[in-house]
Amino acid sequence: MRAVDLIQKKKEGYAHTKDEIYFLVENFVNGNIEDYQMSAWLMAVCFQGLTDEETAYLTSAFVDSGDVLDFSDISPYIADKHSTGGVGDKVTIILIPILASLGVYTAKLSGRGLGFTGGTIDKLESIPNFRCELSPDEFRKQIKDIKVAISSQSPNLTPADGKIYALRDVTATVDNKSLICASVVSKKIASGATSIVLDVKYGSGAFIKTPEKARELGDLMIKTGKLLNRNIDVVVSSMEQPLGCAIGNSLEIIESIEFLKGNKKSDLYEIVLELASKTLFNCKLADEYNKAKAIIDEVIDNGSALDKLKQIISAQGGDVRCIDDYSLFNVGKNQIEIVAEDSGYISKLDALDIAYSAKLLGAGRDKKSDSIDFGAGIHLNKKIGDSIQKGEPVMTLFYNNVDENRINDSKNYAYKSFEISQNRVESRLIY
Amino acid sequence: MRAVDLIQKKKEGYAHTKDEIYFLVENFVNGNIEDYQMSAWLMAVCFQGLTDEETAYLTSAFVDSGDVLDFSDISPYIADKHSTGGVGDKVTIILIPILASLGVYTAKLSGRGLGFTGGTIDKLESIPNFRCELSPDEFRKQIKDIKVAISSQSPNLTPADGKIYALRDVTATVDNKSLICASVVSKKIASGATSIVLDVKYGSGAFIKTPEKARELGDLMIKTGKLLNRNIDVVVSSMEQPLGCAIGNSLEIIESIEFLKGNKKSDLYEIVLELASKTLFNCKLADEYNKAKAIIDEVIDNGSALDKLKQIISAQGGDVRCIDDYSLFNVGKNQIEIVAEDSGYISKLDALDIAYSAKLLGAGRDKKSDSIDFGAGIHLNKKIGDSIQKGEPVMTLFYNNVDENRINDSKNYAYKSFEISQNRVESRLIY
Repeated sequence: MRAVDLIQKKKEGYAHTKDEIYFLVENFVNGNIEDYQMSAWLMAVCFQGLTDEETAYLTSAFVDSGDVLDFSDISPYIADKHSTGGVGDKVTIILIPILASLGVYTAKLSGRGLGFTGGTIDKLESIPNFRCELSPDEFRKQIKDIKVAISSQSPNLTPADGKIYALRDVTATVDNKSLICASVVSKKIASGATSIVLDVKYGSGAFIKTPEKARELGDLMIKTGKLLNRNIDVVVSSMEQPLGCAIGNSLEIIESIEFLKGNKKSDLYEIVLELASKTLFNCKLADEYNKAKAIIDEVIDNGSALDKLKQIISAQGGDVRCIDDYSLFNVGKNQIEIVAEDSGYISKLDALDIAYSAKLLGAGRDKKSDSIDFGAGIHLNKKIGDSIQKGEPVMTLFYNNVDENRINDSKNYAYKSFEISQNRVESRLIY
Repeated sequence: MRAVDLIQKKKEGYAHTKDEIYFLVENFVNGNIEDYQMSAWLMAVCFQGLTDEETAYLTSAFVDSGDVLDFSDISPYIADKHSTGGVGDKVTIILIPILASLGVYTAKLSGRGLGFTGGTIDKLESIPNFRCELSPDEFRKQIKDIKVAISSQSPNLTPADGKIYALRDVTATVDNKSLICASVVSKKIASGATSIVLDVKYGSGAFIKTPEKARELGDLMIKTGKLLNRNIDVVVSSMEQPLGCAIGNSLEIIESIEFLKGNKKSDLYEIVLELASKTLFNCKLADEYNKAKAIIDEVIDNGSALDKLKQIISAQGGDVRCIDDYSLFNVGKNQIEIVAEDSGYISKLDALDIAYSAKLLGAGRDKKSDSIDFGAGIHLNKKIGDSIQKGEPVMTLFYNNVDENRINDSKNYAYKSFEISQNRVESRLIY
């Protein structure tokens, strides 16, 4: 078998065998297939696609390229949740304590953010002293003890995906559903999850722009799960506007704490219910949406989900006093209100513009080595569909030390992000 | 400008500006753009194509990446001829002495063959002591002195094409007409030619399989010439069967000498006339096919083309006695006749099978470092359309020291290469 012949085969639109996919992945990882051959193959895949079977082969080749974690001695059901990424998406931080307080085990490996705002790990690290770099032993012990742990220390999981993803990023071969599916699903399988819920986002603030494309990707992920004997469920949700009201690391943690205190904002609540209930179905803890909703509401309303968050913070060295004293967080000392110049209804609140605005304030990073200001971010006073009066603030920018030019650019993005119309516009979250 | 954005642009089917094409080529040559990005771009080009303008920009970016030879002080017309490659194609060796004896200057840089049979340089080196590695000064002096020189010493011409070609070869991105056109035309322009005739081949023994595709490539080459102010003419010709009767280095030189002695075989004669007459039109030495044919016939029939070949051999250190004494050539000591098992007409004589057969006898090389046996090859006794009796030889294999297995494989290819039918089949050479 020769790489050049496999590239040619895909270029001509033929499907690979399992052996061919494994040949490509294994030889790429061990250096026998060069970057330039893999990138040519990836580009051919972008044009010709992969079949469902090829996608499953690629996914399992990624899994088999590295270690596979196994927590089956702890529980037959190990849950995991993944979002394809969005602005203001703090759902993991809310969902995991809820699930753990309901008895669902979750082994969560998460990443730092590259792009507009931080990743889940960055957000958690805005909690004073919170430690995300757990050793494999610490990780396992914490899961046993309190049913949930979240770590940035990723063992040698799916190295093939890591190497291929780095290449896709610089060769304009990111946006293929099979490549995305294999990348996401392989990581979840390798991290030991048996029951996986994926939040596939579409819209201005997501890399998938339409609900139809997101649905296609979601369906492929479900099929891949079936072919590889994993329970995968998918929620397709909108990222036209940010999720919830907080964007930026400390602000999002505070919003998550507020949620678990019972301040269940409508769009966050809707998606948390959707993802949590699907996980409960998967783990046989509920068989119907209303029953799931009832037990989820219960652990929020009786404070046990918030207690679970405290346990997580405490177990990972964080300062639990922050739950009740938000002044312990770094929150931008300086604020700028972005005010409405008309009265009416918010008809647009562009997630991408808001993300740019937040990043300019210091909430995100361009390069891995860049530092993040946990205090930078944006708080939305209004969401799509809300009424607003001329002069009322639509949102507030939070920042610490940022030069004048960046502040002006940030304001420009913020003002560009929203529109006001005379008619009330509905926004749909779950597709 | 970033490479990844340009890859994305081409992937989405947009046309590049001249600046963008130059950015890609220049930064690839100086190492700022990585192989894996260039190969992804090349694959995107294979799917989305390049416009005529983009093809011309790419061609001139290739030219500008290295040295450009200039013989305008010697003559306003410097001819060059190039074939996209075929089996038994010794046309350059016949054409150049004819043109030079008619007063046309030709600065010919040629390559060694990689594949089934040798390249023009390999063929010439089968002449005892013939020296192809001329220094730039020797090359220029010889052109001045006898109007023609042929050298394998290629100065730093079109290094961008060299680097990109190496990548195309291993990433299944060879077969795009714009990439082929830029590669071929840039080399001709950089080598100082003002008047270029290209023989674009199609069929089993060529990498282009249909006359339509060859015509498309030819038309693009003509357009590229116009956009870059060069006279480019194109002949589209068949490579379904080998050209002439000899395949293999020494055998092809002997056939070329025979041709210049007046033994003008029909298909070789047809293509030589076509290419030579187009060059004469280009150089304003004839304005009409019949006049061109008359003066070409004249220099063959009166021996001045053969004299010119002797001058070339002599100038480049070769043993001119070989013109009259073929025993000075290494011609395979062993021969095997491939005989017809039926009577009828040759209806197929597959160039690719015959090339494989010749290569197995030692006429070609797999790797640059492989050596060639100049004496190995095949002589065709019959061509498509010829009548044949059962038991008559269709062709003869020539070889020196080859192991039994390779000889058997070679015979199998030779027997597989031809078909005999009861009806006479016409073959068309020029499309």
